[in-house]
Amino acid sequence: MKIYKLFFLGYGTIGRALTRLILEKESEIRGRYGVDFRITSVATRRHGLALDAGGMNAAELLRLAESGHKVGKRSFDENNLADWLLESEADVFLENTLTDRQSGEPAVTHIRTALRRGLHAVTANKGPAAFAYRELRDLARSQNRRFLFEAAVMDGTPVFSLFRETLPAVRVNGIRAVLNSTTNYLFTRMEEGLDFEEAVQAAQTIGIAETDPVADVDGWDATLKTAILAGVLMDHPLRPEEIAREGIGTLDPRAVRRARAEGRPYKLICRADRTAAGLSASVRPEQIPTEDPLASVRGTATMLCLTTDVLPGLIVAGTEPSPRTTAYGLLSDLLCIVRDTQKD
Amino acid sequence: MKIYKLFFLGYGTIGRALTRLILEKESEIRGRYGVDFRITSVATRRHGLALDAGGMNAAELLRLAESGHKVGKRSFDENNLADWLLESEADVFLENTLTDRQSGEPAVTHIRTALRRGLHAVTANKGPAAFAYRELRDLARSQNRRFLFEAAVMDGTPVFSLFRETLPAVRVNGIRAVLNSTTNYLFTRMEEGLDFEEAVQAAQTIGIAETDPVADVDGWDATLKTAILAGVLMDHPLRPEEIAREGIGTLDPRAVRRARAEGRPYKLICRADRTAAGLSASVRPEQIPTEDPLASVRGTATMLCLTTDVLPGLIVAGTEPSPRTTAYGLLSDLLCIVRDTQKD
Repeated sequence: MKIYKLFFLGYGTIGRALTRLILEKESEIRGRYGVDFRITSVATRRHGLALDAGGMNAAELLRLAESGHKVGKRSFDENNLADWLLESEADVFLENTLTDRQSGEPAVTHIRTALRRGLHAVTANKGPAAFAYRELRDLARSQNRRFLFEAAVMDGTPVFSLFRETLPAVRVNGIRAVLNSTTNYLFTRMEEGLDFEEAVQAAQTIGIAETDPVADVDGWDATLKTAILAGVLMDHPLRPEEIAREGIGTLDPRAVRRARAEGRPYKLICRADRTAAGLSASVRPEQIPTEDPLASVRGTATMLCLTTDVLPGLIVAGTEPSPRTTAYGLLSDLLCIVRDTQKD
Repeated sequence: MKIYKLFFLGYGTIGRALTRLILEKESEIRGRYGVDFRITSVATRRHGLALDAGGMNAAELLRLAESGHKVGKRSFDENNLADWLLESEADVFLENTLTDRQSGEPAVTHIRTALRRGLHAVTANKGPAAFAYRELRDLARSQNRRFLFEAAVMDGTPVFSLFRETLPAVRVNGIRAVLNSTTNYLFTRMEEGLDFEEAVQAAQTIGIAETDPVADVDGWDATLKTAILAGVLMDHPLRPEEIAREGIGTLDPRAVRRARAEGRPYKLICRADRTAAGLSASVRPEQIPTEDPLASVRGTATMLCLTTDVLPGLIVAGTEPSPRTTAYGLLSDLLCIVRDTQKD
């Protein structure tokens, strides 16, 4: 039985959902891949630092974190990350801290540190892939390690693994997508009759919108995701600031309702298309025909439509995102690393 | 440069489209995977048998086949398949003959022969996977070879590779799908005002319906595909005859139009669901709400919706199927074999 030791930096909803999923799938993973995942460190601002290179009791860890207790007595100091990584003997670094929306920091720095120390890095954060994909990918390659972020776009729905594993020798020429759950949910609720503020409140009630949903409403979240897709699927580095962006905040709910009634509903459409000049990308509310598959994306669902040189139209979509589906994206990255290593 | 030698049994539209795709992607495949595909035999009923273990000129082969000439002087005798396979020194057997709809023969026998001889087997035919999946899979495993059929369902849209490569540790609990292009196209055209016969003629004109489209219209094609999905994605062997089946031939085009106008369009829905008793599966016309993603499947498109234990709703869809997209399904299987071998 090969052991994979995990280092969690940040241990909020997603980290805990991943722990639960690993516990749930433990015997299946053992039977199928012959491996065990073991948590050897959890480092958090609020709950302190727990570290045991022999492996911690995951169920006990969950219980402590969920009841609001400290998971360890030591306190968090980011400057010590490299030492902790060493002490934890971890194979995989799971970065799940809060990141700055304009720079991807401090997640980018954390992942750089982990890759340099010879760990694989896995994250559900968009920042690292949106702002530093090429650097981190190349650093990972130079270390014979992986930098993976399946959960950063469309949660656990296969996007990057779909491209990497199931579309060999395909060239992606165009992307159209609905990538932001919150704005899509707002459109759906406004179409049902709510005004903008009521729709935002409804989104907050079901836990998908932040207290301040500005990064969703102004299109920034969707823009970061579009930048990642352009960089990874189209091999075209694009800084998020280079993407033409328009939010949904200025739309009148009555116009949203009328548009749906007239069969031309609004969606926050993300686009990237190869052009003679390179790549043209945008994120903006667009009215699309009801027959467009993107028009069928309701509530919190997301959908990605690819135009490629061999498949004219390939669609992948996911419904009902939750911490569990995000955690599955992380787990599928972990299992990608396991399978990789088994091939060496 | 590693050489993969290919044996084509049957060389119709699909075999030729694959040859074209291999020529088009030759330098990319060489650069990325370090391999060359070389055709060492083409065996056909109409165009004779060509065989050269050193490899044939693919462009010349295409030219001959497309102009209706014989590709080789020797004549086809199925009983000699095992000898030809040996003489061709082929690594991969591509089975693209016409198969019997009720048994999958003679394709099943051909693939069995090829696997026993130590070749990998790849096919776009539904028969082998619908009638003999477990036997052929197990035979392939015992020979350390692969039996792959990505193109058998939804052409080149990743279905089996999606499940195999991007959904580790996932349990599929339910399948809902629109899998038959012809019937879906007939619904779309009837909704636009054609009667049944006119719609069938239109489907024949664009080349998607057979002269006798009965296996599409009576739901049998969709049933074979449902049986394959149940067997591979749900690990539940199901003979096609065990699936409750109803065709679309008895539907009145006026009812079809009315259903769409009322927001409850008809689709030929394929279902498989785990139940306490095992698996319940059906293929039948159903009226579904316009908001259902399956309602957005227009014309020749296809869509598969999975319910799994971790992802509540995962959708994959493909539009504009053609011989080229089917050929891409075969190419992606070939590249799966290449990548497999590189891992050994």
